[in-house]
Amino acid sequence: MSSDTDSEPDGSTSKCGANTDEGKASSSSSGSKCGASKSDDSSSSSSKCGASSSSSSDSSGSDSSGSGSNCGASSKSESVEEKVEATVDDFDAEPGRLMAVGLGPGHPEGMTQRARDALLEADHIVGYTTYIDLLPDEIVEGAEDIYDTPMCGEVSRTEESVDRTLAGNDVAIVGSGDPNVYALAGLALEILESKGATASMVDFEVIPGVPAAQSCGARLGAPLVNDTVSISLSDHLVPMPEIESRLHAVAKESFTITIYNPWSRKRRDNFEKCCKILLTHRDPDTPVGIVHAAGREDEQVMITELGELEELGESEIIDMTTTIVVGNEETYVWDDRMVTPRGYETKYDY
Amino acid sequence: MSSDTDSEPDGSTSKCGANTDEGKASSSSSGSKCGASKSDDSSSSSSKCGASSSSSSDSSGSDSSGSGSNCGASSKSESVEEKVEATVDDFDAEPGRLMAVGLGPGHPEGMTQRARDALLEADHIVGYTTYIDLLPDEIVEGAEDIYDTPMCGEVSRTEESVDRTLAGNDVAIVGSGDPNVYALAGLALEILESKGATASMVDFEVIPGVPAAQSCGARLGAPLVNDTVSISLSDHLVPMPEIESRLHAVAKESFTITIYNPWSRKRRDNFEKCCKILLTHRDPDTPVGIVHAAGREDEQVMITELGELEELGESEIIDMTTTIVVGNEETYVWDDRMVTPRGYETKYDY
Repeated sequence: MSSDTDSEPDGSTSKCGANTDEGKASSSSSGSKCGASKSDDSSSSSSKCGASSSSSSDSSGSDSSGSGSNCGASSKSESVEEKVEATVDDFDAEPGRLMAVGLGPGHPEGMTQRARDALLEADHIVGYTTYIDLLPDEIVEGAEDIYDTPMCGEVSRTEESVDRTLAGNDVAIVGSGDPNVYALAGLALEILESKGATASMVDFEVIPGVPAAQSCGARLGAPLVNDTVSISLSDHLVPMPEIESRLHAVAKESFTITIYNPWSRKRRDNFEKCCKILLTHRDPDTPVGIVHAAGREDEQVMITELGELEELGESEIIDMTTTIVVGNEETYVWDDRMVTPRGYETKYDY
Repeated sequence: MSSDTDSEPDGSTSKCGANTDEGKASSSSSGSKCGASKSDDSSSSSSKCGASSSSSSDSSGSDSSGSGSNCGASSKSESVEEKVEATVDDFDAEPGRLMAVGLGPGHPEGMTQRARDALLEADHIVGYTTYIDLLPDEIVEGAEDIYDTPMCGEVSRTEESVDRTLAGNDVAIVGSGDPNVYALAGLALEILESKGATASMVDFEVIPGVPAAQSCGARLGAPLVNDTVSISLSDHLVPMPEIESRLHAVAKESFTITIYNPWSRKRRDNFEKCCKILLTHRDPDTPVGIVHAAGREDEQVMITELGELEELGESEIIDMTTTIVVGNEETYVWDDRMVTPRGYETKYDY
């Protein structure tokens, strides 16, 4: 997936709200601390800052980043009010660089050289624990600090990355896939603006990655070689009626459709509605490719038909790490590959 | 751009047809030659095969791949009829591997490690001259042979890659961007099938890359973080009425729209129609990002408004190497960045 943005288990907003507040409480304090301590002792800065990550619940990655827990506690014991509202005026350091880096599919080989270089240059790397765990050792070991939070913490995590940047650190905020695909590039800009900072001030840069649609399309063969659309079924941030309207509009036309965030127990209705909408415009035998955890150890790939899709919702292959590619009227399956003709056969003899 | 598929100057089909025939004439012969000579002398094989590339017109890349020109002539002097129809039965070698490799944006740093490894493993690398010229020296120098053809040769070039694979070589066919985005992954499968081969027989693999939409989205900021669609304005392979219908359908909904192949002198009408269709559904002040030659030396980036787009068609910034990102109703411009809100502001306080 390109981001954990929509990956909240059962969309438990309250839990996220809690994480967000907690994250905000610790983020600015650790952010400014890093900026300060960085100038005198970066190694202590490293343990101090890393610590703030362990103040957010079960952040497994914080172990691998060698962070302690004392400072997480101490940062929480400091005045929260002042910190939560941290704006650009609260930082006296020269701002660092902020890079939104796309890791591509799950394995390190899927990362571009540019992404790898950016992560090696960054003082601090901030991300969802699951993605931090995907980073190559050389990058984790080379970073002054790693700040990771579990699912749902995307706003606090992104604010943390902005605060650490304003505190003078070069910061990379990472996600799988591409930072522009249901990911945090936009949120980083929104939070910069909310703090009275600017993108130019932090030399804000987006480093693109291979999106899940491309990783999954590649595993399936060539399902996406013509006009195509990406739709997320998560209604956490977009009202379901809008999502339904978009599905109707594109299913009527001959777009291939990549479905992100297809399923959670809380959102089973969205998946079922999606399948029904697609079937009102496309034949039940329309090829559908399902890729679970693309590029990860537990990757699963299945090619099925649209008529079979809804009942697969309950099966293990479809969860929030799954991407689904729905073929158009011309898509066919050959030798276990999904192929959507681009139209050459109408012009060339082969 | 992800492929030269649609990049034909003024869509001169006849020229392409010619290239195609010429390519076919030399492809199978050079392909089988490579298969044969490979077993005794790969260096002579290299010059022999490389030579066939210079039999296709002005293939500048063939110089950098150190291919001669004698064999190109000699392959043309051989019986064409037999070669043009080459099927799997015409090859007695054990087939090699066929990899469709996406290079991502123009610069080598935009390539994934997996793509680099695949190109280093390949015996032969086949591609459009412009993309071959983007390859790092270590890859060009490490390849046994490079076969490149200029614009319009995509069918003959893809058949060449298939023939060389069936002749026993491990072949990488390359393009910028991703092999699934208006690119050759599908054509390779179609040609394999037309020759009576199978994808499994050649261990066909697609190695994804960063598509132009993502490279351009990154340069523009965060314009693509919500549901989005890709549409090519080339009517070389898709009838214009279909393209118009797709544009109407998605412009009505709040998709961001990435436009590939926006312009050629022959297709100025398509671009003008596209602008008019978008304006029937979206405000003239809708932000539009234009990226020319993303990641190349002559890269240009401009953020404008939908109402200004049509007249820019005649300007240098819009040509077949340009990708255009049209914002949705919520997209705004801040600090020279395009931002499409994902919806966090509706749920979070920041």
